[in-house]
Amino acid sequence: MSEHTWTHKDLLSIRQLSDADILHILDTARSFDEINTRPVKKVPTLKGKTVILFFAEPSTRTKMSFDTAGKRLSADTFSIAKSGSSLQKGETLKDTALTLQAMKPDIIVLRDSSSGAAQFLAERLSCSVVNAGDGWHAHPTQALLDAYTLREAWHGEFAGRKLLILGDINHSRVARSNIELLTRFGVEVSLCGPRTLLPKAADAWNCRVFSHVEEALEGVDAVMCLRLQLERQQAGLLPDLRDYSARYCLTAERLALARPTAKIMHPGPMNRGVEIASELADSAGSLVLDQVSAGVAVRMAVLFLLATRTEPSVI
Amino acid sequence: MSEHTWTHKDLLSIRQLSDADILHILDTARSFDEINTRPVKKVPTLKGKTVILFFAEPSTRTKMSFDTAGKRLSADTFSIAKSGSSLQKGETLKDTALTLQAMKPDIIVLRDSSSGAAQFLAERLSCSVVNAGDGWHAHPTQALLDAYTLREAWHGEFAGRKLLILGDINHSRVARSNIELLTRFGVEVSLCGPRTLLPKAADAWNCRVFSHVEEALEGVDAVMCLRLQLERQQAGLLPDLRDYSARYCLTAERLALARPTAKIMHPGPMNRGVEIASELADSAGSLVLDQVSAGVAVRMAVLFLLATRTEPSVI
Amino acid sequence: MSEHTWTHKDLLSIRQLSDADILHILDTARSFDEINTRPVKKVPTLKGKTVILFFAEPSTRTKMSFDTAGKRLSADTFSIAKSGSSLQKGETLKDTALTLQAMKPDIIVLRDSSSGAAQFLAERLSCSVVNAGDGWHAHPTQALLDAYTLREAWHGEFAGRKLLILGDINHSRVARSNIELLTRFGVEVSLCGPRTLLPKAADAWNCRVFSHVEEALEGVDAVMCLRLQLERQQAGLLPDLRDYSARYCLTAERLALARPTAKIMHPGPMNRGVEIASELADSAGSLVLDQVSAGVAVRMAVLFLLATRTEPSVI
Repeated sequence: MSEHTWTHKDLLSIRQLSDADILHILDTARSFDEINTRPVKKVPTLKGKTVILFFAEPSTRTKMSFDTAGKRLSADTFSIAKSGSSLQKGETLKDTALTLQAMKPDIIVLRDSSSGAAQFLAERLSCSVVNAGDGWHAHPTQALLDAYTLREAWHGEFAGRKLLILGDINHSRVARSNIELLTRFGVEVSLCGPRTLLPKAADAWNCRVFSHVEEALEGVDAVMCLRLQLERQQAGLLPDLRDYSARYCLTAERLALARPTAKIMHPGPMNRGVEIASELADSAGSLVLDQVSAGVAVRMAVLFLLATRTEPSVI
Repeated sequence: MSEHTWTHKDLLSIRQLSDADILHILDTARSFDEINTRPVKKVPTLKGKTVILFFAEPSTRTKMSFDTAGKRLSADTFSIAKSGSSLQKGETLKDTALTLQAMKPDIIVLRDSSSGAAQFLAERLSCSVVNAGDGWHAHPTQALLDAYTLREAWHGEFAGRKLLILGDINHSRVARSNIELLTRFGVEVSLCGPRTLLPKAADAWNCRVFSHVEEALEGVDAVMCLRLQLERQQAGLLPDLRDYSARYCLTAERLALARPTAKIMHPGPMNRGVEIASELADSAGSLVLDQVSAGVAVRMAVLFLLATRTEPSVI
Repeated sequence: MSEHTWTHKDLLSIRQLSDADILHILDTARSFDEINTRPVKKVPTLKGKTVILFFAEPSTRTKMSFDTAGKRLSADTFSIAKSGSSLQKGETLKDTALTLQAMKPDIIVLRDSSSGAAQFLAERLSCSVVNAGDGWHAHPTQALLDAYTLREAWHGEFAGRKLLILGDINHSRVARSNIELLTRFGVEVSLCGPRTLLPKAADAWNCRVFSHVEEALEGVDAVMCLRLQLERQQAGLLPDLRDYSARYCLTAERLALARPTAKIMHPGPMNRGVEIASELADSAGSLVLDQVSAGVAVRMAVLFLLATRTEPSVI
């Protein structure tokens, strides 16, 4: 494991992390990844620590991943959903969080539909806060698990590699967090999608922007398909699905334009046949399930680093 | 415990099991049953193992039973409901299962409304799959816990005993799995219920079929009342409840036609006064709560055998 | 810890407890409170014990508190909601409880909307039952945590202290249980609220009753604001909220009529600006979060005493 002193109380966004922080998370995750392949997948590291999973938006995959990460480190985990919580009775998010904190948890993992919710709580709570997705803003553990997955696939090298992010960039906290992280390590990130689903200020993001997927795919080392939120269609932001699929679905024919070794990623859940051809999702180049496995390891690393940090720090 | 090598990756149906497999499960369950009566009801046997309870249909009793079984063996258990899962977002069952598997569980316990769902997943996953009820098809741990309960009540003897299954046979995975198991060990199983709730091919099941409950009850050693799914009434498959109850409800008067030592079973939840008279449910001959206790022991045995099997096998 | 032999199988109401029982719970809670401030917040005391949290009414705060208490003592905890339970399928509360008991839990914690539900089950189950709130009737662990909080704030002295309970007394199990407990230790409890929200037989409760909050506040050592259930307004029991707030909201101006050291309590969740001014909720005199912390410690004490009692007793 790299020699590095972790000092952050919270994990709110990739932006708050130094390059050394990020590499330290990835190195720590790798050592935990090994635990997940053992017959006895558990270490006593966080025994007696309390982790609250406060998911105001439903998300099986992310919650299960954090829950698994916590339990494999022997922490006690607690799930709280918005529907069962006092938020429904009109309590403010801050009061709910202060109440939870009074039960002396070590870490609160928060998924919320409002951008900035995790930051808001982190400033008001003495326990650690992990942002597990806040609106369209950030989803730092997703970016970290994607980076972990790509680093493994790319044999440790980020610099000079080309990644295309394809689909609904504008409403994606996954895209935002990934661009922030990967460009810092020299990955050339480009974006492609219908104009209505691209951010207006995409140029400021340090990415090339394409409207034709064929052009965008040329020579890339990996393609990250984003989930098409089907409810965008009702909002008039999407052409019909057949049209979207015809123009932007990642197919084997299109992927042939990328490098022969090109990898395929998707944060899930996938709409097979809409943003990604079913055969590609299951193909040898698909890293979709590696991403899920990496998620557990990365979240183990994050929980471990937050719960055992030596000194408090200002974000 | 019997000398027997367990080799199955999955528990999908009674049909897949040899007689020796079944007896080995029952013997193993008995040794675990003892743990449930101790002041400290926990053994470290499955420490570091991960068990996912994926219940696409709600079921407190079965889920709680598996959850208790897992925790008493020191496994980490995780509950996932359909409503909180990505299935709701249009993901396929297979993709959800592959995603869960990528988090490296040892066992996925599946309750699903589609017949064959557990088999479908078992063929695609490397982790163990337990069928906790799939549509009308099978519910093997229910049949095993019923067999366990009857074996205890019958002092170890199945051969020549007579069991009547009473009620809605046609829509019951409990009935199917029980008939499959018990007839193999020489129990004479007979069936009784309204014609609309009996399977058309009942003769092929190796069971006598009765339409009059009085005739059916004569000389039996046990009666298993099935839950009347009250929604069948709307579907026109049931006469009105009062009529059903008048003709098929197990009452003390009717039970007098069975053997004096006859036992009463019900998989729960009971509609008291509909398929079973309330006084009988609470009578000395009732095994209803023994069935529940047996459920925990049998599920401990199943989780234990699957998680510690020595060699993989084809189903 | 005080020398005292705990003999109760259940905790149903404050009324069942002797003064010595109550002080023993508070003393035991204090020793557990210390555990909650350690880096490793867990003791093996209840390892192998099973605690079922059966909440037929939603309540994040109370359920999370019991769950935390159980896990910090190393018990296995199980959450069951009404919506996922067989109660929905028409099973009676008694049958659901007998089914749960057949899985051999040590303690069932019950929240139910019917007054007397916990008592009803306690009489029928051999495992321990904890009343976590039954209708308007009782909420004994809330009263115990409030007593714990006040005893800490009042340096161990109850006798001669004055507490005002302010708000919807009539529909509050919190108020009932608190009055029962605190008056026995010599606290002078007075009540204030709109006539429609005061109990008709308030005089029989051994409390002074005020209709003007200014008069009620004079010289008190603590004020406990109760949550205004906003649905009372629709039922015609409340004037409009603005009017309620104008007449009964605890404000800094009003609090100035109490003792300078007066403490502020609220069982949560708070309607800031309705029954309590936001600035007071966050003020130095506020014990609101201390109450939450005390809740975990008191519930650890209750679970511990019930699960390790030496002799069974009649309630």
